[in-house]
Amino acid sequence: MTRKPWQGRFSDRTSGILERFSQSISFDRELFPQDIRGSIAHVGMLGKQGIIPEKDAALIQEGLEKILADLKGGALPWKEELEDVHMNIEALLAERIGKAAGWLHTGRSRNDQVALDLKLYIRDACTSAAEGLRHFLEILLKRADEHFMVLMPGYTHTQRAQPVLLSHHLMAYFEMFRRDHGRFASLPANMDECPLGSGALAGAGFAIDRQMTAEALGFHTVTRNSMDAVSDRDFAAQFLFNAALCQIHLSRLAEEIVLWATSEFGFVKLPDTFSTGSSMMPQKKNPDPAELVRGKTGRTIGNLTSLLATLKGLPMTYNRDLQEDKEPLFDSAGTVIGSVEVMAGLFAELEFKTKRMEEAAGDPLMMATDLADYLVRKGLPFREAHEATGRLVALCVERECGFEGLSIEEMKKSSDLVEGDVYGVLTPEASVSRRDVPGGTAPGRVRSAMEEAREWLDKMSRG
Amino acid sequence: MTRKPWQGRFSDRTSGILERFSQSISFDRELFPQDIRGSIAHVGMLGKQGIIPEKDAALIQEGLEKILADLKGGALPWKEELEDVHMNIEALLAERIGKAAGWLHTGRSRNDQVALDLKLYIRDACTSAAEGLRHFLEILLKRADEHFMVLMPGYTHTQRAQPVLLSHHLMAYFEMFRRDHGRFASLPANMDECPLGSGALAGAGFAIDRQMTAEALGFHTVTRNSMDAVSDRDFAAQFLFNAALCQIHLSRLAEEIVLWATSEFGFVKLPDTFSTGSSMMPQKKNPDPAELVRGKTGRTIGNLTSLLATLKGLPMTYNRDLQEDKEPLFDSAGTVIGSVEVMAGLFAELEFKTKRMEEAAGDPLMMATDLADYLVRKGLPFREAHEATGRLVALCVERECGFEGLSIEEMKKSSDLVEGDVYGVLTPEASVSRRDVPGGTAPGRVRSAMEEAREWLDKMSRG
Amino acid sequence: MTRKPWQGRFSDRTSGILERFSQSISFDRELFPQDIRGSIAHVGMLGKQGIIPEKDAALIQEGLEKILADLKGGALPWKEELEDVHMNIEALLAERIGKAAGWLHTGRSRNDQVALDLKLYIRDACTSAAEGLRHFLEILLKRADEHFMVLMPGYTHTQRAQPVLLSHHLMAYFEMFRRDHGRFASLPANMDECPLGSGALAGAGFAIDRQMTAEALGFHTVTRNSMDAVSDRDFAAQFLFNAALCQIHLSRLAEEIVLWATSEFGFVKLPDTFSTGSSMMPQKKNPDPAELVRGKTGRTIGNLTSLLATLKGLPMTYNRDLQEDKEPLFDSAGTVIGSVEVMAGLFAELEFKTKRMEEAAGDPLMMATDLADYLVRKGLPFREAHEATGRLVALCVERECGFEGLSIEEMKKSSDLVEGDVYGVLTPEASVSRRDVPGGTAPGRVRSAMEEAREWLDKMSRG
Amino acid sequence: MTRKPWQGRFSDRTSGILERFSQSISFDRELFPQDIRGSIAHVGMLGKQGIIPEKDAALIQEGLEKILADLKGGALPWKEELEDVHMNIEALLAERIGKAAGWLHTGRSRNDQVALDLKLYIRDACTSAAEGLRHFLEILLKRADEHFMVLMPGYTHTQRAQPVLLSHHLMAYFEMFRRDHGRFASLPANMDECPLGSGALAGAGFAIDRQMTAEALGFHTVTRNSMDAVSDRDFAAQFLFNAALCQIHLSRLAEEIVLWATSEFGFVKLPDTFSTGSSMMPQKKNPDPAELVRGKTGRTIGNLTSLLATLKGLPMTYNRDLQEDKEPLFDSAGTVIGSVEVMAGLFAELEFKTKRMEEAAGDPLMMATDLADYLVRKGLPFREAHEATGRLVALCVERECGFEGLSIEEMKKSSDLVEGDVYGVLTPEASVSRRDVPGGTAPGRVRSAMEEAREWLDKMSRG
Repeated sequence: MTRKPWQGRFSDRTSGILERFSQSISFDRELFPQDIRGSIAHVGMLGKQGIIPEKDAALIQEGLEKILADLKGGALPWKEELEDVHMNIEALLAERIGKAAGWLHTGRSRNDQVALDLKLYIRDACTSAAEGLRHFLEILLKRADEHFMVLMPGYTHTQRAQPVLLSHHLMAYFEMFRRDHGRFASLPANMDECPLGSGALAGAGFAIDRQMTAEALGFHTVTRNSMDAVSDRDFAAQFLFNAALCQIHLSRLAEEIVLWATSEFGFVKLPDTFSTGSSMMPQKKNPDPAELVRGKTGRTIGNLTSLLATLKGLPMTYNRDLQEDKEPLFDSAGTVIGSVEVMAGLFAELEFKTKRMEEAAGDPLMMATDLADYLVRKGLPFREAHEATGRLVALCVERECGFEGLSIEEMKKSSDLVEGDVYGVLTPEASVSRRDVPGGTAPGRVRSAMEEAREWLDKMSRG
Repeated sequence: MTRKPWQGRFSDRTSGILERFSQSISFDRELFPQDIRGSIAHVGMLGKQGIIPEKDAALIQEGLEKILADLKGGALPWKEELEDVHMNIEALLAERIGKAAGWLHTGRSRNDQVALDLKLYIRDACTSAAEGLRHFLEILLKRADEHFMVLMPGYTHTQRAQPVLLSHHLMAYFEMFRRDHGRFASLPANMDECPLGSGALAGAGFAIDRQMTAEALGFHTVTRNSMDAVSDRDFAAQFLFNAALCQIHLSRLAEEIVLWATSEFGFVKLPDTFSTGSSMMPQKKNPDPAELVRGKTGRTIGNLTSLLATLKGLPMTYNRDLQEDKEPLFDSAGTVIGSVEVMAGLFAELEFKTKRMEEAAGDPLMMATDLADYLVRKGLPFREAHEATGRLVALCVERECGFEGLSIEEMKKSSDLVEGDVYGVLTPEASVSRRDVPGGTAPGRVRSAMEEAREWLDKMSRG
Repeated sequence: MTRKPWQGRFSDRTSGILERFSQSISFDRELFPQDIRGSIAHVGMLGKQGIIPEKDAALIQEGLEKILADLKGGALPWKEELEDVHMNIEALLAERIGKAAGWLHTGRSRNDQVALDLKLYIRDACTSAAEGLRHFLEILLKRADEHFMVLMPGYTHTQRAQPVLLSHHLMAYFEMFRRDHGRFASLPANMDECPLGSGALAGAGFAIDRQMTAEALGFHTVTRNSMDAVSDRDFAAQFLFNAALCQIHLSRLAEEIVLWATSEFGFVKLPDTFSTGSSMMPQKKNPDPAELVRGKTGRTIGNLTSLLATLKGLPMTYNRDLQEDKEPLFDSAGTVIGSVEVMAGLFAELEFKTKRMEEAAGDPLMMATDLADYLVRKGLPFREAHEATGRLVALCVERECGFEGLSIEEMKKSSDLVEGDVYGVLTPEASVSRRDVPGGTAPGRVRSAMEEAREWLDKMSRG
Repeated sequence: MTRKPWQGRFSDRTSGILERFSQSISFDRELFPQDIRGSIAHVGMLGKQGIIPEKDAALIQEGLEKILADLKGGALPWKEELEDVHMNIEALLAERIGKAAGWLHTGRSRNDQVALDLKLYIRDACTSAAEGLRHFLEILLKRADEHFMVLMPGYTHTQRAQPVLLSHHLMAYFEMFRRDHGRFASLPANMDECPLGSGALAGAGFAIDRQMTAEALGFHTVTRNSMDAVSDRDFAAQFLFNAALCQIHLSRLAEEIVLWATSEFGFVKLPDTFSTGSSMMPQKKNPDPAELVRGKTGRTIGNLTSLLATLKGLPMTYNRDLQEDKEPLFDSAGTVIGSVEVMAGLFAELEFKTKRMEEAAGDPLMMATDLADYLVRKGLPFREAHEATGRLVALCVERECGFEGLSIEEMKKSSDLVEGDVYGVLTPEASVSRRDVPGGTAPGRVRSAMEEAREWLDKMSRG
């Protein structure tokens, strides 16, 4: 029968029902590398400060290193009755090095310990997410570069609106995911205070050197208030938000893949490697990765909601409710990192059916804005130009033709500013070229944007 | 190399990245009992209808029964590359009985199969949740009965408001959890249509007898539209809502336990069996089960949000996004059933510190409403009576005394309707007795409510 | 300076900051009809029971009737410093009938009063929502009837899967919205207990007749526990859930309208009356109602989350947090009722481009399941039939043809069970006809489903 | 009959149902100052670039200035049939200056216009929120300073844990709200790209100078991709997250106010100015502002959920769903700014009942950690010291005494390291003094923290 580390004042044993219900080892074991890293730094400091015997500190550090290696190898069992990852590791240590293990928890509480572990975990997850996004951005840029001059319809309201370059469309996602990259990459600097030394809530009762431990763990400084430090989960909430927003961006791209892969759009052909079939319908080839990425967006929103609702109304300082911070965190980290990887894989192999796109880009009514702009340049205020063009659109719809199907005379009825040069503005190539402003779809502008992106990626790769 | 069941038209193998990302076997294996139950019913019908050879049907049923037994014993391995529980079970069957297993999926798709499995799972979960709640209600009623006449302050805004009976307070929770019981117990009847036979989306292409399968599985009838049947997850959303609302009720009770267990309230003493200590502070005895139950409310809200967000905007019919329906469902089912169990355990052993409660119930200003009501009965309109009493409260606050500390003359200054009989209405016992309306806290009313509850529970136990 | 009705014991005035922050009159005035209805019933009972003078009761009732009429006419001002709808109405009454108004609040608290108002409001909103849905269901059935035999592709994963009837597709939505109708129509019966008489928390202190008031207000019975009655918001949460789920169904239909209205699908033509244009692009005709309905789904999910998070962890009984129940409720009620109305309007005028649908329905690979089923009927286990068909699909994809482009000899290479009769099964008409099971898309089955729907609607119209 | 600005190609009028449903003027009019500011900058640039006649540009600017002044004065009516704030303002302009108004929308679409308006609005809201928080932080620091040396119990799990200084407790909230301040103050720099010039999606078709407009509006630069620019709402989501997290922090403080204001805790006395009474119970004085702040947390979580769910799965670029971004934004901005204001008001006047706090801080078992630490300093490993102390706690609980009620001999039975100096460590003053690490509750450390806070606030006030 394993003894609880806090059992001194209790006379009856914990109910088995509560033991099962309250254990966290089934999920918080994911924190073992962070937990051991933190303990090694802590105990090193305790030794140097002379708070515990230095040789015991060395013994503990050595023992922990071995446990870390064994755990990475998957060799060691976890015990539910030891509640959590912290107590499991301390018990393993005691089995190996005996009484000296009893020094490890000096000047520390599980409250500051778990706050530390979480910060270390999120720092690692941010690094992985940012690296995954960087890789995906490389692929997006590469595909944009390969299809630089391909024309396609740009959509608003999922209706054809104006022609754009496929490269411009892909670069829109580049911007979204670059923002996500920035959110993940910058989070560690916004949580760069080590909580260790805050004790249960009031601060450690020993002459520990908090800054020494902080630096050993790669933090810039220490938290400013012990009560806040053990109850703060802002960084976890921010990570969950970053993950949800990134997943939402992925869901938008996924939605487009689903659309583009339909028979009706036919803008892409899915690679066999990144699609699956049906157990019943032999002809099916489904955009499953895109659908899953889209579907998983729900869980990242749910995980964020979950933590926020849990935090609401908690009085100071640590409350056991906070144990519920971990599963949403692990789940969202895994989801977003996995989703970025699968979308990167899909995009690396996706075939764009450029002929189909270019045919669609020729849809004549998409040049209506160009016609209105033409009239403005001839001197007509925009509202009147829009109205005049609208009447010509109505005529085209009635006749089921494009503007090129109307004669100059017919056009002049709508506005006598129309002249023979009008037809020159009514091609997708002309339309695209005229969007010649920073951020616009004119080829030169898209090329510049891609060059800037290239430089940025290079800077990121260099770190 | 395991062959996918849908691989006919594909030439390249699925990417390992996608395989890991899209597999569901790591969680949907929880559905194996339901999946096998469904398959046994389906194949029995196929045999009887002569759609497949009857001896093969028997062979399949026998094989499935054995697999079910083996899985319950934990004996069989799951293969990630077989994607999901359905394909894993079919593959196990094929290993055991050979080619005959190939008939199993006749007239069925994974789309209607998984809709069925989910309905069966939820039916089972509803039964468990309702049974757990019934057990908890028994305990609540028992504790109310044991403490029938204990007085305590009733609170609004967490401020002492009017005295009530502890039994009345506990019976308030009885009503909440009775509603939860009703929601779980009635859900199966609201999803009582078997989806099997809906095929992938258009209906099965064989002369299957849907009603026969439905009845074998305990459904009343069959779904009315095949396209709706494979994409409907209303029942899952309703279950998640029921779970979240029940957990919210638990969180309210949990909040009170946390309050009552403080040194400041001191209304309960936690049993050693249902509380835990601190790794740092030797004196601590914490209301962890209550905190965890309260904290887990976040995840049940998050799970509901997750599914609703996933369902939003999905076009007809089945989309792979729907794979995401399972984890929130399993998690909320486990959470709510576990939370009810732990609260039942806690309440069975919780010690109410009734002396402390009764002292608090004597707080004299809580009888202010009684004083106002007294004036109304003497003929003063309520608004004036409230105002007159308010002035006396101000006087008491100033003097730091109760109404009994004011003389008749002082009281008369506020309203000359006050007479010597006023002091009789200013005790907690009198206050409680006067709330003598159905649902009120007067002892006779609470006793009636408990008798009605007893009868209802007896009816529930008889089923 | 308006005097607060609870001001007796206070010496300083409420801060203007708090007054603005805590007022609810800017939104809870929406409850005025319910509030007055409740007061009239309450005061009638007080008079009959002899708790207040009967002539004053009559005076109050008369006064309230006039105020109700004036408020409906929009004639009366609301005062922020009177906090809420209840106090505003009572103050209006006092202005008109003087001191007698002071009797109105006898035996009642704002806590049970607002619980009543909410229940009455939700009952009314359920009636409106159910009636709006019934109207929409009429339109869906009418449109299904008009296009009974139109063929179209059925989709899974937004990929063409099997041909279905457009009427069958529309009837899938009929089933969804019928469930929504049921959820709204049945909610009143699940909240059919009148809370009035519960007082602030402990029950009224007068000999009121709760059942009399309940019946006057159309309730079946009274709430069973006063503490639960003033803090219960289950019915509001259930309404918000019903609204969110209905809106999600609307969002699915909306998503399809957006898809179908694209140039690429071209399955519908939007009526001018239910679409809008662009301020910049003269040719645009956008499916705005569908997009808005889809977009508004977010707020109904958010409203549900909002109330659930607010309720979490509230101790007994009434807490001011509960004031936050109203805005999400009003918003979701308005959103879902308005969305149903706009979708009904859109569907009444929507033009289905049936020629385009039928062309798409002829997409030959959609008959692959029929080919596999054909082989099963010839004696091949389904898994082998699926595999054999899959190989033929691969051949078709390579050749860019349908099955009809393969010779019998080529087919036989995949399975020698193929014979000359195979071509007969490979048409969309044959495919649809063979889904001849209850709930399937075979014309006879769809016709039966529509007949059942007709009868159900007729029953609903009769009430 | 008002003519729609996009009506050219339409023959039938918009349905009244859709007009009511799709209008946004009832809420987006809140954007009028931002909208006009944006238009003035845009048209100034158009004039300077010679895209429109310079005198018309001046006329428009002048007209807009006047409209802005009139709108601020509340003088002008909004028309629902003009849909939104943009069209309403343009129509007002046309009424006043005639045809020249038609130039205003040149080179602009409502898509980039509304993206701009939102960014300007959020920038303003961030400034207000940060300023409100700075004010609140001043008050928190002031109250901490006034109560610098007041002892109180520090809590974990809402159980007394270790004594802390009230000033330390208040400074924990200082840290939380300082982080919130940082999130609001830094958001504008993370959205510092002007979207104007992105057109409907592809970029403007005129030689506009985007940088000129951007600088006129206080932006550092312009957005990099037009398609992303019109569909990006990351900044709105981030604002909603910031608001929700800040409100959660407020809810934690609010929860403590509710607790502390109970008769049982009695740690604070609510000012009359920031509390309210009951319509039924004359003695009640309720912590309504705290309850409302806590309750409103639900809506800020709901608003975040709402926008995230709305954004999920939207294909490129602008979709009408995005209209739903505004109401949650306005609501969360108003909620969080109002809640900070009300909490600041409450805290400015709140009376801390320090005698009651100090009595509670003397609760002897709270010094158990100090006793364990004492044993560690005598040479006992922490785990053994914890266990030894635990046994003494059990003895105290049994005897209902504190450690000072135990003799040295009794203590020695648990560990013979105990000596006469032990009693010196068992006072709250000694306990607090020993938490002498950065961030700890030792008076010197708290004083340092307050000095750092003072400097930081001074820096903030200087801007």
